[in-house]
Amino acid sequence: MTDPNVERKLIEIMRIISKSDKPLGARLIADELQNRGYAIGERAVRYHLRILDERGFTKKHGYIGRTITEHGQKELSDALISDRLDLVITRIEELVYKTTYDLREKKGNVIVNVSIIDKSDYEKAMDVLKYAINAGISISPRIRIVDEDSEEDDIFVPDGKFAIANVCSITYDGILLKNGIPSTPLYGGLMQMEAHQPVSFVDIIGYSGTSIDPIKIFINRHSTSVLDYIESGNGKLLANLRHIPGSAREKAHEVMELAKDSDINGYLQIGETSEDVFNVPMERGKAGIPVIVGSNAISAIAEAGIPVKAYPVSTIMDYNIMKKLE
Amino acid sequence: MTDPNVERKLIEIMRIISKSDKPLGARLIADELQNRGYAIGERAVRYHLRILDERGFTKKHGYIGRTITEHGQKELSDALISDRLDLVITRIEELVYKTTYDLREKKGNVIVNVSIIDKSDYEKAMDVLKYAINAGISISPRIRIVDEDSEEDDIFVPDGKFAIANVCSITYDGILLKNGIPSTPLYGGLMQMEAHQPVSFVDIIGYSGTSIDPIKIFINRHSTSVLDYIESGNGKLLANLRHIPGSAREKAHEVMELAKDSDINGYLQIGETSEDVFNVPMERGKAGIPVIVGSNAISAIAEAGIPVKAYPVSTIMDYNIMKKLE
Repeated sequence: MTDPNVERKLIEIMRIISKSDKPLGARLIADELQNRGYAIGERAVRYHLRILDERGFTKKHGYIGRTITEHGQKELSDALISDRLDLVITRIEELVYKTTYDLREKKGNVIVNVSIIDKSDYEKAMDVLKYAINAGISISPRIRIVDEDSEEDDIFVPDGKFAIANVCSITYDGILLKNGIPSTPLYGGLMQMEAHQPVSFVDIIGYSGTSIDPIKIFINRHSTSVLDYIESGNGKLLANLRHIPGSAREKAHEVMELAKDSDINGYLQIGETSEDVFNVPMERGKAGIPVIVGSNAISAIAEAGIPVKAYPVSTIMDYNIMKKLE
Repeated sequence: MTDPNVERKLIEIMRIISKSDKPLGARLIADELQNRGYAIGERAVRYHLRILDERGFTKKHGYIGRTITEHGQKELSDALISDRLDLVITRIEELVYKTTYDLREKKGNVIVNVSIIDKSDYEKAMDVLKYAINAGISISPRIRIVDEDSEEDDIFVPDGKFAIANVCSITYDGILLKNGIPSTPLYGGLMQMEAHQPVSFVDIIGYSGTSIDPIKIFINRHSTSVLDYIESGNGKLLANLRHIPGSAREKAHEVMELAKDSDINGYLQIGETSEDVFNVPMERGKAGIPVIVGSNAISAIAEAGIPVKAYPVSTIMDYNIMKKLE
């Protein structure tokens, strides 16, 4: 048994192959995985297919593609049903653990959101993105554009599309952890802004009891008013909330201030221990940290009428290959 | 201070009046409350307005309507912000407590979902509803249709619309409580059905950490395939999950079997103590009870292309004024 993340993808790949009435190639499988919310490239699919072949679960038919074996079919129906329900918090914890960015050396990986947009909307989307990022409603101005034929990035981009990777606010949790502070993401939500100031969370969805990313739910419901906010100072922005032990407040403050030297900035406050944060109650002994999330820039693109498929908290990326938009 | 439910509505009414640039009447206020997810009629609004007048928070201008006073404006901005974030679980607990239906006397209130549909879609919607209910994907065949000018029901129906009230699965939690069994709703979700059998939860959203009803999220995302399921036995149905103490399993079984005599039927099983329920992990010592929810009938209407505004877990209703569809 290798790591659970690989196992999950193996199962998903077997499910896709088993549902097809003809052999399937890596490209089609990657495409279908994409539809199911896995940001995984064709090369990564080939790697997984080799594991499946070795285990005798799939069979290769020259260049046509793979079919599932009887042995694979049994494996699929037996043990693997339990892997269909992925909780968001599981993926978050995995990515938090993999965040290696060092605030002093200014090197390492951060967590990114991946958003898929039609190439024909490139100019317009980049205009909105620039406008939104300059308005400061994203946690970092650095982004990376990934083309469909990129060799450097392990992000699957369908034909005719491009991807925007931007810094995800869960990076804060990874950085805090790397500095010895246990930080637990609690809720994704909508923050009511009035006169450029945060007033109250107006909606929240928990990270722990859900299989769909809360931020994705809010983007898809078109619940934000990022563009209105930029223009008037009033509106609803995407925000999330984590807690840390109250005793770590001072250290957390140092760490999050230091992060500003790396262009990572978006936390609103470190709440008082045991006290409500913008009307969300905290556990006794915990301090809440609300953050205006990176996905606001993506929601702004959606608000501008450009179709966008958002995958928040998607993968990790070397922060130094990400650049400020000029 | 009266009960928190009344206070919440008073605040919401003040917010609506304060945002208007002219005096507002009860009808317009009820309309706007409706948009914000409160199923409250014009008469009930008048009742609340009288309380606000008495407290000096609003002022009546003859038949034109109310404006907010300076005193009211201050009250609104001070104490009341905390009431903007309503957690679903709070409303659920309130309605569970108000469920009075007695399985032996066959009298009392159940919890209903309220769904608002355009009158011009009446025939088509009722056809789909009948089809869906006859297929058994709802927890009770009894419903109530509420017209816009109904005097008997305290459900607000906008002009040109009608409302369907159908039994909400949270009624089970109310009935279990009334029989001495503490039942805690945990998740709303999507159940994968294969060959007419439940196979696995494929998505879940927690009731406790969210301000938007999980079932409403799934209906609005068009994630169900109720009509496919009815035709083929395969598809995704709305389902939810609660837990009870493991020691109450036998008693719960008796209660839920007895409920069938009252046409209340939709629970899939009572899980083993401490064991996963369709791939959702349970706490130690707790037994999970998954239920195919009443909102499936409403989702079927939405799938048929009929616009519907769904308010799951909306209010309580005397079960004996609800009738089987002929």
